[in-house]
Amino acid sequence: MVETNAKYVTKAARATRAEYRHFQPVATRWMDNDMYGHVNNVAYYAYFDTVVNAYLIGEGVLDPAAGDVIGLVVETGCRYFASASYPETLEVGLRVAHLGNSSVRYELGVFRAGEDRAIAEGFFVHVYVDRTSRSPTPLQPPLRDALAALAV
Amino acid sequence: MVETNAKYVTKAARATRAEYRHFQPVATRWMDNDMYGHVNNVAYYAYFDTVVNAYLIGEGVLDPAAGDVIGLVVETGCRYFASASYPETLEVGLRVAHLGNSSVRYELGVFRAGEDRAIAEGFFVHVYVDRTSRSPTPLQPPLRDALAALAV
Amino acid sequence: MVETNAKYVTKAARATRAEYRHFQPVATRWMDNDMYGHVNNVAYYAYFDTVVNAYLIGEGVLDPAAGDVIGLVVETGCRYFASASYPETLEVGLRVAHLGNSSVRYELGVFRAGEDRAIAEGFFVHVYVDRTSRSPTPLQPPLRDALAALAV
Amino acid sequence: MVETNAKYVTKAARATRAEYRHFQPVATRWMDNDMYGHVNNVAYYAYFDTVVNAYLIGEGVLDPAAGDVIGLVVETGCRYFASASYPETLEVGLRVAHLGNSSVRYELGVFRAGEDRAIAEGFFVHVYVDRTSRSPTPLQPPLRDALAALAV
Repeated sequence: MVETNAKYVTKAARATRAEYRHFQPVATRWMDNDMYGHVNNVAYYAYFDTVVNAYLIGEGVLDPAAGDVIGLVVETGCRYFASASYPETLEVGLRVAHLGNSSVRYELGVFRAGEDRAIAEGFFVHVYVDRTSRSPTPLQPPLRDALAALAV
Repeated sequence: MVETNAKYVTKAARATRAEYRHFQPVATRWMDNDMYGHVNNVAYYAYFDTVVNAYLIGEGVLDPAAGDVIGLVVETGCRYFASASYPETLEVGLRVAHLGNSSVRYELGVFRAGEDRAIAEGFFVHVYVDRTSRSPTPLQPPLRDALAALAV
Repeated sequence: MVETNAKYVTKAARATRAEYRHFQPVATRWMDNDMYGHVNNVAYYAYFDTVVNAYLIGEGVLDPAAGDVIGLVVETGCRYFASASYPETLEVGLRVAHLGNSSVRYELGVFRAGEDRAIAEGFFVHVYVDRTSRSPTPLQPPLRDALAALAV
Repeated sequence: MVETNAKYVTKAARATRAEYRHFQPVATRWMDNDMYGHVNNVAYYAYFDTVVNAYLIGEGVLDPAAGDVIGLVVETGCRYFASASYPETLEVGLRVAHLGNSSVRYELGVFRAGEDRAIAEGFFVHVYVDRTSRSPTPLQPPLRDALAALAV
């Protein structure tokens, strides 16, 4: 049920767990599997959104409902090396690869239980903006600190 | 952030945890929240699918990829009493309310951590059919036993 | 690819198109199909949300982002008679079965192109509440009129 | 409700409609909007899957349920320049940027009605494999022809 796609990807330097700073389990759902019986490529991005925002909310530095600052996604990407299938629970690693004045590049690795090589690696770039004006806003201390803690 | 809808529902006999036989945690996802900032009504059905099938697969009585018998959903329903919001983790209780010749009625309760009253109660009716002919098939011992273990 | 589930449902009085007052096409998506190759039961509820809110927004009587009044879902349900598969485009019929002081019961039928019998029939009950207090609010003229236009 | 993110993206050479070869409308859904009230970044990937596979199925060169050859996704990406909101209907343009022996790179642009500049641009790379062995298989004439028709 789990085939390796790695051979199709040119520079398949699949990340290991040690390359990430924070981990969160993600339980797959029935609907994550598509007609081909494994987790669809789109579902990985749903995991990324879930893990990044949970980290920020858990650290108390993002309040999506009422905070003055929100994160807008300006670019995302993912490479897929191997597949997973509901009902397994995956683990998603998170790190910060770049911390700019008002933006941050997150990188994420998706791991199967007991495996050290990522089955998928992705990134997404958040720009933090004022909720009302949607203008970029410099990352302030509590948020910046939470992000710096994940920097590599 | 969590309002009570119970007052809008006529016979709000909100179930307690003791009324369910099997529990599974369900971590909410960013996209479960809709524009109003709480878990959308549709997401609860995704939880139900996920919990029921995970139970069956875990018991070794359903193989969605290759088994001869699959479960078709013929009716579902849910009442909503209170709301939840990502990133909280919910707990979903499961029981079997009716076990027929080839069908089963599952009932599910969604609970917030530390609360004994369900925030939502749902059901769904599975008819088990032959994968190829899609004709109903009598529930055989291993599957029937797994279902009977949840009967109330 | 399309099997009939109607025989499993006791009172299968499948609705016809004439029983609905408003129609909206819904294009299926790749991820609506589950492992069994047809539209998953959960997706129908996503269609219902989409059709009801689009009608209200199109009539100018709901502003989810900024309006004073929002619709909370307190109960939903669906019966499934036959299946559909991506990439087909379905048509969803909508009617109002009950119009209360602050609540409304919508009923929906899902039709395949060229067919007069619904493949699924659902309902959902909206209670309209004040966005801030989340207290029920009587349906005011423009909204009430838009709903009354769908009444049967 | 529609802010421009273009200023946050370095090389914002936003594509025009003329750069795509095939178009498909995509109606947004209620759940595509996230807590911030616009279409979530993940939803764009669901659109891509839907448009690419619908094209292939419509051309008669892909049968996800029973064909010998299926497309595995090995890499995806998207840049976001501006936002959209349910209930609007978007238009997605598709082109083939690279056609290899057994793989293809699709590029997609998402357009709002009446606008010539994409609000998002993405890509995804499909490797076509044998359904059973999951080994790459050379693109055969009918599929290759359908892809070549989109090449730029």
